[in-house]
Amino acid sequence: MTTRADGRTPDQLRPVTITRHWSENAEGSVLIEFGKTRVLCTASLTAGVPRWKKGSGEGWVTAEYAMLPRATNERSPRESVKGKIGGRTHEISRLIGRALRAVVDVSALGENTIVLDCDVLQADGGTRTAAITGAYVALADAVEWGTRHGVITPGGKTVLTGSVAAVSVGIIDGTPMLDLPYVEDVRAETDMNVVTTGDGAFVEVQGTAEGVPLRRDELDALLDLAVAGTTELTAAQQAALAEGA
Amino acid sequence: MTTRADGRTPDQLRPVTITRHWSENAEGSVLIEFGKTRVLCTASLTAGVPRWKKGSGEGWVTAEYAMLPRATNERSPRESVKGKIGGRTHEISRLIGRALRAVVDVSALGENTIVLDCDVLQADGGTRTAAITGAYVALADAVEWGTRHGVITPGGKTVLTGSVAAVSVGIIDGTPMLDLPYVEDVRAETDMNVVTTGDGAFVEVQGTAEGVPLRRDELDALLDLAVAGTTELTAAQQAALAEGA
Amino acid sequence: MTTRADGRTPDQLRPVTITRHWSENAEGSVLIEFGKTRVLCTASLTAGVPRWKKGSGEGWVTAEYAMLPRATNERSPRESVKGKIGGRTHEISRLIGRALRAVVDVSALGENTIVLDCDVLQADGGTRTAAITGAYVALADAVEWGTRHGVITPGGKTVLTGSVAAVSVGIIDGTPMLDLPYVEDVRAETDMNVVTTGDGAFVEVQGTAEGVPLRRDELDALLDLAVAGTTELTAAQQAALAEGA
Amino acid sequence: MTTRADGRTPDQLRPVTITRHWSENAEGSVLIEFGKTRVLCTASLTAGVPRWKKGSGEGWVTAEYAMLPRATNERSPRESVKGKIGGRTHEISRLIGRALRAVVDVSALGENTIVLDCDVLQADGGTRTAAITGAYVALADAVEWGTRHGVITPGGKTVLTGSVAAVSVGIIDGTPMLDLPYVEDVRAETDMNVVTTGDGAFVEVQGTAEGVPLRRDELDALLDLAVAGTTELTAAQQAALAEGA
Amino acid sequence: MTTRADGRTPDQLRPVTITRHWSENAEGSVLIEFGKTRVLCTASLTAGVPRWKKGSGEGWVTAEYAMLPRATNERSPRESVKGKIGGRTHEISRLIGRALRAVVDVSALGENTIVLDCDVLQADGGTRTAAITGAYVALADAVEWGTRHGVITPGGKTVLTGSVAAVSVGIIDGTPMLDLPYVEDVRAETDMNVVTTGDGAFVEVQGTAEGVPLRRDELDALLDLAVAGTTELTAAQQAALAEGA
Amino acid sequence: MTTRADGRTPDQLRPVTITRHWSENAEGSVLIEFGKTRVLCTASLTAGVPRWKKGSGEGWVTAEYAMLPRATNERSPRESVKGKIGGRTHEISRLIGRALRAVVDVSALGENTIVLDCDVLQADGGTRTAAITGAYVALADAVEWGTRHGVITPGGKTVLTGSVAAVSVGIIDGTPMLDLPYVEDVRAETDMNVVTTGDGAFVEVQGTAEGVPLRRDELDALLDLAVAGTTELTAAQQAALAEGA
Repeated sequence: MTTRADGRTPDQLRPVTITRHWSENAEGSVLIEFGKTRVLCTASLTAGVPRWKKGSGEGWVTAEYAMLPRATNERSPRESVKGKIGGRTHEISRLIGRALRAVVDVSALGENTIVLDCDVLQADGGTRTAAITGAYVALADAVEWGTRHGVITPGGKTVLTGSVAAVSVGIIDGTPMLDLPYVEDVRAETDMNVVTTGDGAFVEVQGTAEGVPLRRDELDALLDLAVAGTTELTAAQQAALAEGA
Repeated sequence: MTTRADGRTPDQLRPVTITRHWSENAEGSVLIEFGKTRVLCTASLTAGVPRWKKGSGEGWVTAEYAMLPRATNERSPRESVKGKIGGRTHEISRLIGRALRAVVDVSALGENTIVLDCDVLQADGGTRTAAITGAYVALADAVEWGTRHGVITPGGKTVLTGSVAAVSVGIIDGTPMLDLPYVEDVRAETDMNVVTTGDGAFVEVQGTAEGVPLRRDELDALLDLAVAGTTELTAAQQAALAEGA
Repeated sequence: MTTRADGRTPDQLRPVTITRHWSENAEGSVLIEFGKTRVLCTASLTAGVPRWKKGSGEGWVTAEYAMLPRATNERSPRESVKGKIGGRTHEISRLIGRALRAVVDVSALGENTIVLDCDVLQADGGTRTAAITGAYVALADAVEWGTRHGVITPGGKTVLTGSVAAVSVGIIDGTPMLDLPYVEDVRAETDMNVVTTGDGAFVEVQGTAEGVPLRRDELDALLDLAVAGTTELTAAQQAALAEGA
Repeated sequence: MTTRADGRTPDQLRPVTITRHWSENAEGSVLIEFGKTRVLCTASLTAGVPRWKKGSGEGWVTAEYAMLPRATNERSPRESVKGKIGGRTHEISRLIGRALRAVVDVSALGENTIVLDCDVLQADGGTRTAAITGAYVALADAVEWGTRHGVITPGGKTVLTGSVAAVSVGIIDGTPMLDLPYVEDVRAETDMNVVTTGDGAFVEVQGTAEGVPLRRDELDALLDLAVAGTTELTAAQQAALAEGA
Repeated sequence: MTTRADGRTPDQLRPVTITRHWSENAEGSVLIEFGKTRVLCTASLTAGVPRWKKGSGEGWVTAEYAMLPRATNERSPRESVKGKIGGRTHEISRLIGRALRAVVDVSALGENTIVLDCDVLQADGGTRTAAITGAYVALADAVEWGTRHGVITPGGKTVLTGSVAAVSVGIIDGTPMLDLPYVEDVRAETDMNVVTTGDGAFVEVQGTAEGVPLRRDELDALLDLAVAGTTELTAAQQAALAEGA
Repeated sequence: MTTRADGRTPDQLRPVTITRHWSENAEGSVLIEFGKTRVLCTASLTAGVPRWKKGSGEGWVTAEYAMLPRATNERSPRESVKGKIGGRTHEISRLIGRALRAVVDVSALGENTIVLDCDVLQADGGTRTAAITGAYVALADAVEWGTRHGVITPGGKTVLTGSVAAVSVGIIDGTPMLDLPYVEDVRAETDMNVVTTGDGAFVEVQGTAEGVPLRRDELDALLDLAVAGTTELTAAQQAALAEGA
């Protein structure tokens, strides 16, 4: 059987930690850890929506992903200093936003905006999937805060129609593996990020065969593995949200 | 049975036209049409590689996607005038580059660079999949040109290890459909872009459930439909490349 | 007598082709060819004017010129990727806009805006003069479209007070020549772009003696040659506009 | 006697916490807290220096300060998204860099570069002074790391010629006060940031009388208070560095 | 006794010239010279305030500092060409703005904006202190102009509650010196810029010990020297403003 | 006969003043005034050329034009603050550079670069023509300086093959007029800028009929007027250069 460097079995997640209320200022603030990957997810709720949504009666949810310069092994230049955001950052920010909007009823949210900031403090693979998983919890906290303070008045509707969680899977030396840390990620022939709802339906499937193209049976195996992973992550989210409730 | 606005059956592609040598200056130049979607794909071959590849003995293939301001029904501001490239443009450029690199043996290419420019002259849905499908043909022409002129000296290897083609699929009113034009794309509950090699293996799978999350059986149906589509597109590519050969 | 590489006499234009309705989305869409130079000119008509014209009762006409990266023999980096527009692009965009405004009665246009996008698909000298000549035809189509659809209500006035066409002239080895392709352009001691109205009055004269400064008699000869050229181009515009009328 | 909202006396610091090795990747990584203000300071050591220092035999130390969007009570737009760094960010980055360079012997450092990244995770006043105080500890760790791994070879010299610490002082309702949190900072008539070495000499004095200009005796009182504060902070730095040594 | 290269005693200012109305267009326009340092300070008064001040009944005063490319011994690239403003420029612009706002009663100014542009035409050290000293005179002229033309209606209040002047001081070879030209500035161990009101109270104190940290007695000596300098500069400002009054 | 607001006849220049050595740092520094238009032209000579000229044995001459924010009646935002250079600035910078290169023998200049900075301190029409006329004098001074200091070693050749001067002309109420101040410029039906060599040959002709298109006889009259103007300006340049020679 394949041995992984950190001793996990191929279908095992890294230890997951979800710390709510990590910082005090935001309506939702979650520090999520997938092993050594550490992402601070804050949810900022403000009344009002962007111009193109005004008068629609609907809210807006968006996300911004970023990495501290030395989250990685080698320091990368700041995007603020370079004066522009790279393609990877854009792409991940858009992915997180779409994933969360999949479980938000914008008409129940009303004309309010929630911005999810996902800042990677330490990176060891899977930063985008950790960000989505943590951002959902921060979003839930912000929605709860908004409802409690009367900013959000869903009027019988439910703002969050479900939950979302995400995980990476990949094929390494022919074996499908769950939740890849950096050392595995660079070796993977195929890399896939999967976002599912709490009941296991697919919200996003993004697979890339950087090395060898993927046969259909391999694709199927990866999807199975991913759903098993997001099911476990969903449980971790629910446990975190249950604390202090 | 579901009727589509343009009279196609759910599993039917739009008419595909591939015009090689559309412009004279580039080493490869292809005008590809998927119905009204019209993309000019040029391949520029130059000796040398980016700094981070120097001395590696390997080549580099990259892509840039863009849309003319009035390719669409409403004019969009130019990204050059706005001074920055949007997230969508970045994302598609990266996708095209990855898709083509999946079938290039960079060691056979040697220290040469091929840039694929995919400029959408008219947009009616599926611009990124048309771009990938057309760019492959332009790439093949550029590789042939480079080999004929002695710029590329693969030395017994094959630069192109296969072909790639791409198509969009989506679920509309519960029915999986192939190759969505704009009017269908905006109505789709789920939208997926699939890139496969000529022999039907997956290179990229990018699915987004903007509306209702996707059950596993629906995902399977979409993948089947997509592979049927790319198989047909592969045939069109081969037919175009066979002309004048 | 001077022989030109392409067999023309010094006072002869390259073959001119004007294809209206080349793309479907824009109110005016013209593919113009001066020999191998190929420019797609689209005219986008929208209700409303920029803020500084609001309430004036007058319309606005502006232009944006750009070149595809591989329109030329060597690929140039995209201005959108570089994050800024170069001086040459700015200058030509401004020139095209001024040239067209010279024949527009903005009070007859009413508070509507027409943007002319001139994208060079293939470049072989004279791109700015081809752009102006083609943009006029696209503009005429857009004005006709707007009037027919009731967006423009000139109320007895005429929106277009005339037509404009443009051509390049230059002195090569002492001989004044008309409509320079790239190989002649780089050899010219003097390069002049002339825009005239359909009845031969000057709208723009832009002459640069990059090599030897220009005597007055040489300047006069160039102006004569240019007016002969734009007269011929005016005829080509009228012929194109007469089709299907 | 003046009572402060948080119960401190005017000459009392907020609780200070210094956590070394907070993240694993950087050569120095310190989470510093001045009350609720929380700054992650990482020190990245790399061989080589910027071009203008090459061949000088000397090293380079620089700093970049930034704030997470929701470090504050209201979310601020990311500088990476805005595409430029604001004046305040520039100014503080420059201040931190100068402060640290004051205690570095660049000839002992050799041709190595240390970048101090100070990212504010939570802001409650005094972020620049916390950043300097924390960055010094991260710098000391990086220098120790570099020496231990043979990257830095000071050859008998001492890289760090002293230590630096910083604190804010201000006058509120006529009373000089030490280490202002946000609520006091906005009320202060005068705001001063003072950086001293470990033995109490001044490295930077930056005072601004936003409200009432400052008499000389008031300035003297503020300087006295500040030096008392940095003396205490120096002790906290030394205690942190002594752990595990 | 220390001899300075230009023959001054340590506590002597360079010759100061203040030319009012140097250009005709602005409401206030002052060319100020501190020796060879030459700064053009213009004050532009316009009705209205930035959005975040609207409806407050208060005015706004801000400043922008810049240097012509060849104001210095070696040409520096233009910040407009580089596409961004450097940290030093930002910092000095902010300093000038704060210094002037310290003597403006914004409620007396009413909802009007005054922008101070300080453009360095020739630089020989002390450009920011010359800029502040000159900008005050330009500001006074603009306020006088605005009051005379009825744009500013202070209604019994005084717009300018005092005057400001600024000077640099530094320690060279152990001796505190006043008003450093470029050759002294680069040699100074410590460099301090001090802004005071006309009656000698401190508005800004910005001291940096680039070389040796500063003892308290040295700091005291520098502050004394600076106040003597700004007292003299205040007299020069008053003399200039008295002309033609 | 047409009376002009400032009392000039239609063929009369405004008073021209050329002050050499206005600032001390640059190799050439000229303050030129055309009436109230006041432009500071500095020439910076440095050894070396841009990368694309290296090894050619030829030098390079380029120009940058800019306007102080309050050179005009209404303050314009700084291009450095906006983060990009406008089309007009680009266009004029390019024009000045081309005009000066027309009289420079780059092989005699050797691998040296001269940058002409033309900063408009006060604007009243004709800023680009004043800039060219003044920049020529600054260029001549820099060439003389470089030759005297042995930086330029023309080896028997002449660096400056002639002189250039420039003037604006326009048609107002049907009358051709020379050297238009701002009030005339905005009223002109046609506006033309003409650059000639000292012996009256044309280097640049840039005419724009913003109002009524221009008949050939009108164009001829404007050219005659312009050459008379530049002849007079050439004399003023020679007189200035003769001083102190």
